[in-house]
Amino acid sequence: MHQHIPTPERVLARDLVALPEGAPASLAGWVHRRRILKSLTFLVVRDRSGLAQVVVRDAAVARHVEALPEETVVSVSGTVFHNPDAPGGAELVGPAVVALTEPAEAPPAELWRPTFAAGLPTRLDHAAVTLRHPRHRAAWEIAAASMRGFRSALGGLGFTEVMTPKLVETATESGANVFELDYFGRPAYLAQSPQFYKQMLVGVFERVFEVGPVFRAEPHDTVRHLAQYTSLDAELGFIRDHRDVLAVLRSAVVGMVEAVETYAGDAAALLGVQLPRVPDEFPVIHFRDALARVGADPDEPDLSPAHERALGEWARAAYGSDFLAVEGYPMAKRPFYTAPEPGDGRWSASFDLLFRGLELTTGGQRLHRPSDYAAAVERAGIDPEVMGGYLDAFRHGMPPHGGFAIGLERWVARLTGAENVREVALFPRDLHRLAP
Amino acid sequence: MHQHIPTPERVLARDLVALPEGAPASLAGWVHRRRILKSLTFLVVRDRSGLAQVVVRDAAVARHVEALPEETVVSVSGTVFHNPDAPGGAELVGPAVVALTEPAEAPPAELWRPTFAAGLPTRLDHAAVTLRHPRHRAAWEIAAASMRGFRSALGGLGFTEVMTPKLVETATESGANVFELDYFGRPAYLAQSPQFYKQMLVGVFERVFEVGPVFRAEPHDTVRHLAQYTSLDAELGFIRDHRDVLAVLRSAVVGMVEAVETYAGDAAALLGVQLPRVPDEFPVIHFRDALARVGADPDEPDLSPAHERALGEWARAAYGSDFLAVEGYPMAKRPFYTAPEPGDGRWSASFDLLFRGLELTTGGQRLHRPSDYAAAVERAGIDPEVMGGYLDAFRHGMPPHGGFAIGLERWVARLTGAENVREVALFPRDLHRLAP
Repeated sequence: MHQHIPTPERVLARDLVALPEGAPASLAGWVHRRRILKSLTFLVVRDRSGLAQVVVRDAAVARHVEALPEETVVSVSGTVFHNPDAPGGAELVGPAVVALTEPAEAPPAELWRPTFAAGLPTRLDHAAVTLRHPRHRAAWEIAAASMRGFRSALGGLGFTEVMTPKLVETATESGANVFELDYFGRPAYLAQSPQFYKQMLVGVFERVFEVGPVFRAEPHDTVRHLAQYTSLDAELGFIRDHRDVLAVLRSAVVGMVEAVETYAGDAAALLGVQLPRVPDEFPVIHFRDALARVGADPDEPDLSPAHERALGEWARAAYGSDFLAVEGYPMAKRPFYTAPEPGDGRWSASFDLLFRGLELTTGGQRLHRPSDYAAAVERAGIDPEVMGGYLDAFRHGMPPHGGFAIGLERWVARLTGAENVREVALFPRDLHRLAP
Repeated sequence: MHQHIPTPERVLARDLVALPEGAPASLAGWVHRRRILKSLTFLVVRDRSGLAQVVVRDAAVARHVEALPEETVVSVSGTVFHNPDAPGGAELVGPAVVALTEPAEAPPAELWRPTFAAGLPTRLDHAAVTLRHPRHRAAWEIAAASMRGFRSALGGLGFTEVMTPKLVETATESGANVFELDYFGRPAYLAQSPQFYKQMLVGVFERVFEVGPVFRAEPHDTVRHLAQYTSLDAELGFIRDHRDVLAVLRSAVVGMVEAVETYAGDAAALLGVQLPRVPDEFPVIHFRDALARVGADPDEPDLSPAHERALGEWARAAYGSDFLAVEGYPMAKRPFYTAPEPGDGRWSASFDLLFRGLELTTGGQRLHRPSDYAAAVERAGIDPEVMGGYLDAFRHGMPPHGGFAIGLERWVARLTGAENVREVALFPRDLHRLAP
């Protein structure tokens, strides 16, 4: 059906070494770097698989290559030569080089240097180009692999993927920091999380997950917050308590770590990521005991970052674990749908998971009885009218359930050691940034 | 670590038959239906795997079951009895029944009836409950499986999953029908598609896909349009022409069909879905020839629904195919980034894919040279300033590329024969509907 196949077929940079010496081969990609020596020009071509070296001895071809600036897209046909000194162990010699577009403008900083030599604002202002830097690209490869592992782990546990509305009628979940928009002449809001929907869908599918954007009109310029980020949400019914949720969270984390290893191993190596070993069970400490362990006042309502760091160190020493679950946070600090600990209503049947001494995710058991919701909504001062369909679900029969949410960018930042979540998002959105 | 495990462990309805006769077993789920006879009460329990029958002979237990309306969440412990007449081939006898929440309010229409006996507005007003109907739930199971297959097919072809901004600075892609919001005091818009971002990311990853929400402020109340829907987007670089895009689209469709078979086979059977056989190559007809074939005026700029139906019938007769690609639509009807056919600028290097005589998706080759973009943007009357980062990407080297987008709800509606896309969305959003 389709005739004009070029000869030879394109080969990816990483597959060049698998071809026999002397074989004809075509690469296609970006001019990553040129090194013009007296009698020799090296052309490094970058494609989605990595880098390949092309050796140009012909003077006319060398002059042509000189006129193709870094980032120009080229197709290169030549002969395979096995050379242990070349990246990947093979190079292309005797090449013909064809530009597939016009010569490229110079990027805001040279992309071939091992470290990107411009600051974060420059990097983000020109994200479409600066993401091409192998280190920047690598961070997202870890993100993509993590999503894949999350889905695969939950799919294997009988979870159904859902897609919930991002346009909602009321902003009652957490009140502040919500984007308002004009919805055919009336106000609507961007969903800050799929919380209410994933709970309702437990009534349909029992076990659901969603990977999608959530929106926070975060008015502070911090290194931890974005106006849009990717939330990995899960919710499951017929649990005994929040520990069942924690066990599923552990499976999800195992899936994410394994997928990074499998699908983004090179990216992780490039960024020096030490993947965590996930213990068979996450060690758990009660909030009350955590306060005592770090020497905090027993009436403290929360853990400070310093406390979390100290607990992270303790978990490593006591359990050899990068992870520590803190359960039983005071009810007063948890959202209205949180279930209390059986027998002691001061504490919640919820947890934070610390990863290397930093909070990674929050989860727990939710209320499920309609009478409990009626009381909780009243206590929280929420008008039950505006909660319509959500409260309905409980009146029509909902099982004991719970769930959790992992912020994708936060997870990748923790893994890669990035200080700012903006470094691991593709096109971050914040107080000041709405483009590109 | 965790002591209070109930005995026996919960078994899913579909797995009951795998247990030996006389074994103790616990089901948990919703009261799907009760049938109260003189000396016998049948309780049908619904869980995520299906239905299981419980036979109650004890008068006290029967009275208890009588007080548990349909949709109440229960745990049922009893003894396995193999009975070919029971759904799934086994039932539970001698049960103890425990309600896990308060007795449920009656749903807006009985969920145990094979066909949901209320109209679409009732169904959508109470989606959290009405989605529990096995037929409604089944439609989404097909959607979830389709997403899984789409990702799996593209992952296998070296595509990287991306997550792009839904909050954008300008509304230039298609101009109208865009939601505007207040973004920290300045206007922003909800992305109508990831088009610009997926193209820019071809410059980074070569092959990208995204599964996520897109937003259209569709002012018309049609059976085909939603204000938010799920778009399955793909874009790939280093193509020869739009036929390479079509080949990847075919692989994606194969993956979707196979995943529906694998993960939602029961759902497809319940809804009477005839899964299409996907031919090794989609048959292709040029737009010009398509007009001639249906006897339309050669100057027609588009195909009417009647034309599409006629072409679908022709494809089935001529090729035995449920699919037909129509390539070469007039440039005048395609967006500014569309590449023309080589040698004839009247026609575009793009296609529509018809599935059973209805348009399923649009795709094609895009422009990639910066000079072509400069001209196209001027021709379209777009201010290049507002296209900032997008046009930048092309100046910094972009390969020949193309892509496509499949509307998830439209795909599922086509498969299931649903007349209205609202029937296959979880919580649809439209001109009139912003809740639940």
